[in-house]
Amino acid sequence: MASNSRCAACKYLRKRCPSDCIFSPYFPSNDPKRFENVHKIYGASNIARMLQRIPVHLREDAANCLHYEAHCRVQDPVYGCVKLIYQLQQELNVAQNQLVKAQAEIALLLNVYGPPEDYISGPQTSEEDLSYSFENCYTQPNIHGHLPLDPSSMGSGLM
Amino acid sequence: MASNSRCAACKYLRKRCPSDCIFSPYFPSNDPKRFENVHKIYGASNIARMLQRIPVHLREDAANCLHYEAHCRVQDPVYGCVKLIYQLQQELNVAQNQLVKAQAEIALLLNVYGPPEDYISGPQTSEEDLSYSFENCYTQPNIHGHLPLDPSSMGSGLM
Repeated sequence: MASNSRCAACKYLRKRCPSDCIFSPYFPSNDPKRFENVHKIYGASNIARMLQRIPVHLREDAANCLHYEAHCRVQDPVYGCVKLIYQLQQELNVAQNQLVKAQAEIALLLNVYGPPEDYISGPQTSEEDLSYSFENCYTQPNIHGHLPLDPSSMGSGLM
Repeated sequence: MASNSRCAACKYLRKRCPSDCIFSPYFPSNDPKRFENVHKIYGASNIARMLQRIPVHLREDAANCLHYEAHCRVQDPVYGCVKLIYQLQQELNVAQNQLVKAQAEIALLLNVYGPPEDYISGPQTSEEDLSYSFENCYTQPNIHGHLPLDPSSMGSGLM
C-alpha cells in the first residue's frame, strides 16, 4: 500500500496500513492531530483493543468520544472532560433552582388573582419534564452532531 | 518493602513499591479496582507519565478524574463519560427552555395585573445568572466532592 494512502494512525506509527486496519475508518490521513491526541492519552494498542471489542457500527461513535476525551485531557491535563461535567452540573443546578423559584412566583400570582380571562397558560413545567431518558443514545447512528466534539470550539468553552 | 504495604498499582503490576512511587498516594492498596480500571483504559505507563507532568498538589484531582473517566468507559465502552456530558446538556437545555417560558408567563401575568400589593418579588432571573464561570475550579483543593465520582452511584445515573 502506498505511503500516501496510509491512515493517520499508521502514518504516525510509521507502519504499513493493512486493508483491514482497525484505525483507518476513524483516523483519516487528513486529520493527523486526531490520532496524535488519542495516542498521547491512551496509546495505540489500548485504542485498537478498545475499538476491537466494540461492534463495528458503534466504533465511529467510540472513536469520536475517545477523541473528545483525549482532546479535553490534552487541553486540561488535570481535569480533562470531567471539568465540563462539573460545569454543566453547576449550570443545571442554577437553571433548575431558578425554575423552581419562577414556578413558585407563577403559583403566587395565580393564587392572588386567578388566571386572567385571556390568559393562555404557558407550558406547565413539572418534575417529569425535567427528567431525562438517555435510552435513545444507543439508537443514534452518530452522537457526533449532538456533542461539542469540535475541538476548535472547546478551548474557550472549557477554560 | 513488604508485600502488604505495596500500593494497588504495584500489587497489580507485581512489582516492588518504591518509597517515591508515583501511584502510591492515589491508588491505595485497599481499592484495587480503582487502579484496575485506569490501567485497563490508559495503561500504567500512560498514567504514570500523565501524573508526572502534573504539579504534585493537583495530582490527586487528576487521579480522581482519570479514575472517573476510566470507570465510565469500562461501564460504557462506546460513549464513556461523554454520554453524561450529552445527558447533562440535554437536561440543561430542557431546564433553560422551561425557565424562559416560565419567565414569559410571569411577565404576562404582571403585565395584565401589575404586581399585587403584598407581592414579594421572587428572585428575578436573568441571562447573567445563567452564565457560569469555571475559574474557581483550579483553586479547589479537591474536585472529588463536587462531582459524581462515586462509581457505585454511576450505574443507574448513566444508564
